[in-house]
Amino acid sequence: MNEHVRTIIATHAPWSKEEFEAQIRAIGPARYHDLHPFHKMLHGGKLNKGQVAAWALNRYCYQEAVPRKDAAFMSRTHDRELRREWIHRIHDHDGLPPEELGGLERWLILTDALGLDRGYVQSMEGALPATRYACEAYVRFVVEQPLVAAAASSLTELFAPSIHRERIAGMLANYDFVNDNVMAYFKRRLTQAPRDSNFTLEFIKEHARTREMQEACVAAVKFKTDMLWAQLDALYLAYVVGMIPPGAYNPGEKSA
Amino acid sequence: MNEHVRTIIATHAPWSKEEFEAQIRAIGPARYHDLHPFHKMLHGGKLNKGQVAAWALNRYCYQEAVPRKDAAFMSRTHDRELRREWIHRIHDHDGLPPEELGGLERWLILTDALGLDRGYVQSMEGALPATRYACEAYVRFVVEQPLVAAAASSLTELFAPSIHRERIAGMLANYDFVNDNVMAYFKRRLTQAPRDSNFTLEFIKEHARTREMQEACVAAVKFKTDMLWAQLDALYLAYVVGMIPPGAYNPGEKSA
Repeated sequence: MNEHVRTIIATHAPWSKEEFEAQIRAIGPARYHDLHPFHKMLHGGKLNKGQVAAWALNRYCYQEAVPRKDAAFMSRTHDRELRREWIHRIHDHDGLPPEELGGLERWLILTDALGLDRGYVQSMEGALPATRYACEAYVRFVVEQPLVAAAASSLTELFAPSIHRERIAGMLANYDFVNDNVMAYFKRRLTQAPRDSNFTLEFIKEHARTREMQEACVAAVKFKTDMLWAQLDALYLAYVVGMIPPGAYNPGEKSA
Repeated sequence: MNEHVRTIIATHAPWSKEEFEAQIRAIGPARYHDLHPFHKMLHGGKLNKGQVAAWALNRYCYQEAVPRKDAAFMSRTHDRELRREWIHRIHDHDGLPPEELGGLERWLILTDALGLDRGYVQSMEGALPATRYACEAYVRFVVEQPLVAAAASSLTELFAPSIHRERIAGMLANYDFVNDNVMAYFKRRLTQAPRDSNFTLEFIKEHARTREMQEACVAAVKFKTDMLWAQLDALYLAYVVGMIPPGAYNPGEKSA
């Protein structure tokens, strides 16, 4: 640690746990992707079926990255109890027989309803390159950043239940290709997400003991809101403005 | 190698070197970013100074990634002669006293002329998250893919001299904040890029001996055109459509 860093730590005492939590929670209303125009169009019924399909196809890449980033997180800790707690996140997304489907298969129920071929969705060939780069940036973040910040990056889950509720109600009301069964993924997340975010919030409040590490956690949540936002930006340009990049899913083409 | 892969190799003989080179060269006219609306606006004088600054600020991230990906490439080969050839690419970008400035410093001459603070540019804080993800995807590609495909990913240099000439002429003609000195980066690349691409082309023609590996090289060049395209997509949405993401450079704000 160089002298400059020492000085910063000395002059910035750690936030109280309450202040730290407040700093994390303040990111949602300022930067979460429920503020993005594409989200508003999606739940407001302003998209056609091809645009919703493009969203679901791209978002599959994110769903697919989540269990990989959780495995990467587990690979970095020697704390068996932490791994035993964390592993249910992988179960949640990949499913564990005979228990249940898992989030990825629930997501494919949605892409089925949108008329997309499962092999095409799972290949991720038609996804926007920008989507794939953003999702991999998330996996890399969890691989490379301090473990506490890596944990903190999952805390957009704090803001997820309200966006899920908004999606379920908005999409059911506005799209005839959406029914209760199709929204299974989001309904399941309504109970899963709060469990995860409560654990993570307590974990980082316990383990981020310096102001520097607390700020790294705040930066991690901002990183995460950025990468969620970037995904909707890419969808907006390709499927609302209409500038679909070479090789990406084109709802107007039969072959897709 | 499983039976399925064996069958593919058996039924697809390698392309001749001429056909392989033709497959690589055909990617430029179909997918290179000189086809992107943002490029046309840039060299056609249709952007204002703030939009050009946004481009230069973001493109700095790409310039900054290039010597890192070249170092990653060198870290993967035990072939000393290959490293001795490849290392000049790092010299070209980072400069090596007492020889010359290097591409990164030439790039900062451009951002100076656009009124951007060097520290702000180099911090990459104001760059679009999508730009940073795309650039890191390139570095990761070179770290993770087969070495021959990693080399092939640099072959967009085959298409670069014509875009550089177009940029130099178009930007000099159309923008009063651009002069010969400011375009130093692109002028230098006119001689550097062909040297690099000629070497790489011979290298992959020699070392990609199966059809499978030749196809991986074609896919590598497509990957690269995708990541260049994605950078212009992000610029277009933020600075032409006007949807600047939270925290990114805003030409309209004093603080940037």
